[in-house]
Amino acid sequence: MSQPILIAGRWRPARASGTFRAENPVSREPLDEFPVSTWEDCDEALRVASEAFHARWVNDWSPEKRHDAGAFAAFLDEYAARIEARKSEIAETAHRETALPISPRLADNELPRTTNQLRQAAAAARDGAWALPTIDKQNNIRSLYGPIGPVIVFGPNNFPLAFNSIAGGDFAAAIATGNPVIAKANTSHPGTTMLLAQEAQAAAEKVGLAPGWIQLLYRTGHEDGERLVSDPRLGATGYTGSRAAGLKLKAAADKAGKPIYLELSSINPVVILPGALAERLDDIAGQFATSCLMGAGQFCTNPGLLILLAGEATERFLETIVAKFKAATPGTLLSANVAKSLAHGVSMLIRAGAHTLVGGKPGTGSGYCHANTLLRASGQQFLEAPEALQTEMFGNASLVVVAEDLDEACRVVEQLEGNLTGCIYSHAAGADDAAYAQLAPRLRLKVGRLLNDKMPTGVAVSPAMNHGGPYPATGHPGFTAVGIPASLRRFAMLQCYDNVRANRLPPQLRD
Amino acid sequence: MSQPILIAGRWRPARASGTFRAENPVSREPLDEFPVSTWEDCDEALRVASEAFHARWVNDWSPEKRHDAGAFAAFLDEYAARIEARKSEIAETAHRETALPISPRLADNELPRTTNQLRQAAAAARDGAWALPTIDKQNNIRSLYGPIGPVIVFGPNNFPLAFNSIAGGDFAAAIATGNPVIAKANTSHPGTTMLLAQEAQAAAEKVGLAPGWIQLLYRTGHEDGERLVSDPRLGATGYTGSRAAGLKLKAAADKAGKPIYLELSSINPVVILPGALAERLDDIAGQFATSCLMGAGQFCTNPGLLILLAGEATERFLETIVAKFKAATPGTLLSANVAKSLAHGVSMLIRAGAHTLVGGKPGTGSGYCHANTLLRASGQQFLEAPEALQTEMFGNASLVVVAEDLDEACRVVEQLEGNLTGCIYSHAAGADDAAYAQLAPRLRLKVGRLLNDKMPTGVAVSPAMNHGGPYPATGHPGFTAVGIPASLRRFAMLQCYDNVRANRLPPQLRD
Repeated sequence: MSQPILIAGRWRPARASGTFRAENPVSREPLDEFPVSTWEDCDEALRVASEAFHARWVNDWSPEKRHDAGAFAAFLDEYAARIEARKSEIAETAHRETALPISPRLADNELPRTTNQLRQAAAAARDGAWALPTIDKQNNIRSLYGPIGPVIVFGPNNFPLAFNSIAGGDFAAAIATGNPVIAKANTSHPGTTMLLAQEAQAAAEKVGLAPGWIQLLYRTGHEDGERLVSDPRLGATGYTGSRAAGLKLKAAADKAGKPIYLELSSINPVVILPGALAERLDDIAGQFATSCLMGAGQFCTNPGLLILLAGEATERFLETIVAKFKAATPGTLLSANVAKSLAHGVSMLIRAGAHTLVGGKPGTGSGYCHANTLLRASGQQFLEAPEALQTEMFGNASLVVVAEDLDEACRVVEQLEGNLTGCIYSHAAGADDAAYAQLAPRLRLKVGRLLNDKMPTGVAVSPAMNHGGPYPATGHPGFTAVGIPASLRRFAMLQCYDNVRANRLPPQLRD
Repeated sequence: MSQPILIAGRWRPARASGTFRAENPVSREPLDEFPVSTWEDCDEALRVASEAFHARWVNDWSPEKRHDAGAFAAFLDEYAARIEARKSEIAETAHRETALPISPRLADNELPRTTNQLRQAAAAARDGAWALPTIDKQNNIRSLYGPIGPVIVFGPNNFPLAFNSIAGGDFAAAIATGNPVIAKANTSHPGTTMLLAQEAQAAAEKVGLAPGWIQLLYRTGHEDGERLVSDPRLGATGYTGSRAAGLKLKAAADKAGKPIYLELSSINPVVILPGALAERLDDIAGQFATSCLMGAGQFCTNPGLLILLAGEATERFLETIVAKFKAATPGTLLSANVAKSLAHGVSMLIRAGAHTLVGGKPGTGSGYCHANTLLRASGQQFLEAPEALQTEMFGNASLVVVAEDLDEACRVVEQLEGNLTGCIYSHAAGADDAAYAQLAPRLRLKVGRLLNDKMPTGVAVSPAMNHGGPYPATGHPGFTAVGIPASLRRFAMLQCYDNVRANRLPPQLRD
């Protein structure tokens, strides 16, 4: 008997075409059974979300209420408190489904990050500045951002809490801007998603959100996913996941003129200049190995491409890293699919000419895993096969490109696709500044976040954060998935009021 | 001998696949000959623009200079002054190509609007607030919007100056954000565009912009247009024009992950409630007729759909409008294509069941023209054929939908596609307030700009303006094509600096 879905404010059996089970990635034991919904479920979720949204706009459009985000803020705060109250069970379930450690990762880092995001979104909803209210008294024209309509969120496999489709950054942003959410669970942690959805629904009931303001499906057919993101009743989509699946959704949404915000893939180039190596080789090697192997490398901002200049220090640096990669026990990967896809990525790069410094094969850790892997290619090789050598290896594997000189390194950077992040380590006292001045502007155009002397894996929930970047890292370089209030504006439309009578204006737009 | 194109800072003959001539819409005489460029021209324009952009970033990336928008602001100001100095010739040429009156339309309204936009964009570039600089000192993370790369602008036929691809709002926004521009002239006013480009180039030389920062092509094959908007060297596209051509460009750009901002079509519904008619029937009839027929109705915000409730006042109102439509001489349309497309649109609506209150046929004014046309359909008819009855009739023609009651009017509004504007006229003392409360929220979701008691044709260049709206009025409801600084952010990417050393930061991001 598979678990129920959350539709229209109640848990009911899915109209399912089948079922699926996630696996415990350590023991490889199948876990609970969840339903694969048919279009009938999708259609009902859309209908309910659309009716709930219209009910708020159409039946309760008093200017005072319609932009009063108090209820949404109260919901987000209540939900955060409920997640905290159920912390152990949520962290244990997430651990069982993902093999990520309960402590510190799930219970002490990711769960507090999640509740912090929900509370920041609540504060942003109350504050209202995210909507950029603009008043032109002389022309009596006023505008602000308002909700776009029902949002569907597809969450990724690698953050079962902080990017969860019913608790993560996209969810918080879509709710704070005043939209109903249909969450599509990531199929590798449906149990965690169910627990979160239970608390979300309880919070929604407590603060009196319309039934069906938040809904949950576990899985749909691919074709139904494409129908969902392009349905006329939908406002917008948030998607974090694989490039292949994301691009199919993008094509469908684009064709229908429906905004879709995607975080697709990124190899996060890190350039280490000679002065930095001369100065602090061991320190940087430690940072790199930690950043690469942490969480078995399963971060969107994992440093998957290291760019170095040829020389003796570079060889010593690589030896140091190789030793660290050898010494570390390979982490358990999130699922059989992740392990398979990582092995595939590694073999693609090897076929493209990279050679193995360490690892390279499915690993001998516990459960699904892959040996800690470092591949190496020359700058020349990279320039000859830039596409194949940028294949994402999602997991504990990175490619080192050793360029002959700065000029070649610059050409390597010019061949990069869009990425979330790019980093340059340089000499503290300025010995690398001339090289930095060559590399940085080239890298700047390719990445959403440019770092100095710091690995990219940490993504602070800061108003200045950009967790985004040029295609194909995302679908549009002007938006960020992390960072409040900027991330909220993705799920909003610009609404102008021209000569509208004062008593009919949203309160934020009155004189 | 056809006119030269502007590439790499000089005027040179096109590598042309053919030539074309615009016509004087009044005399139908062909005007000067202009070239249809091959891909060779497009490719060179892209290469030059990309090199100019990279030269600014890569070879001159001192933090002080790279975000110092002084040169772009100086260019925009210088250009505005040069347009004013050549006002008579520009207005006369535009008049010859478009039949729009020199005075007041071209010389006294549109040209000052154009130079005002250029100067507002210059001020925004100097001010820098458009870039939303955000500093998080605690985490040492900082971000701002920066230029996206070469922008191609496709201008529409109906504003030869204020939306011109090399002088209008998209051009000003793209330059102010720091991007090179490739302008694709509208083929109905290439001569006007050439004059403007001459002044743009002279201004660029005077202030020392890189050669090729602004370039001009007159026409390309459709396939080359699609290649242009999806080329890896391009940053983004601005397009204003027909829905059919725009959607082809959108498909190409979307597939390549290149931002494209489109203004496609809009019928701009106007609802007039019974209390307003009871109170000021003649006044509103006058406003409507003026708004419909001004410039032969060739405005993106022309009120193409009038929604009324059945009743005696509505019949009197329609009689009044019909009399005005009959009495007014039909204006000359912009081109043979506009006349053909208007006749086609009118016949589509008639085939869909609308009947003719006045006009309905190609007209007897001077040059290309069409009789002032008012069609009528019932609410029921509209609900049965909502798609066909929303066919845009670009020009001096509108459809009146007479709904049986408020409920039917609401259902009509619910069937509307996305539009740039939507308007409700209501009783001044509140007699229509209950009806307004029903209609306004429904209309709000369908339009970028909601108006009260005012026709939508004026589009003030105000920071609070939204000249945008849900698909298919535009490609994304979060962006506006008019209104500074918001329109600038379309041509920008979000750039975050994480732990970047102080001397390497753009000045706006320093402590």
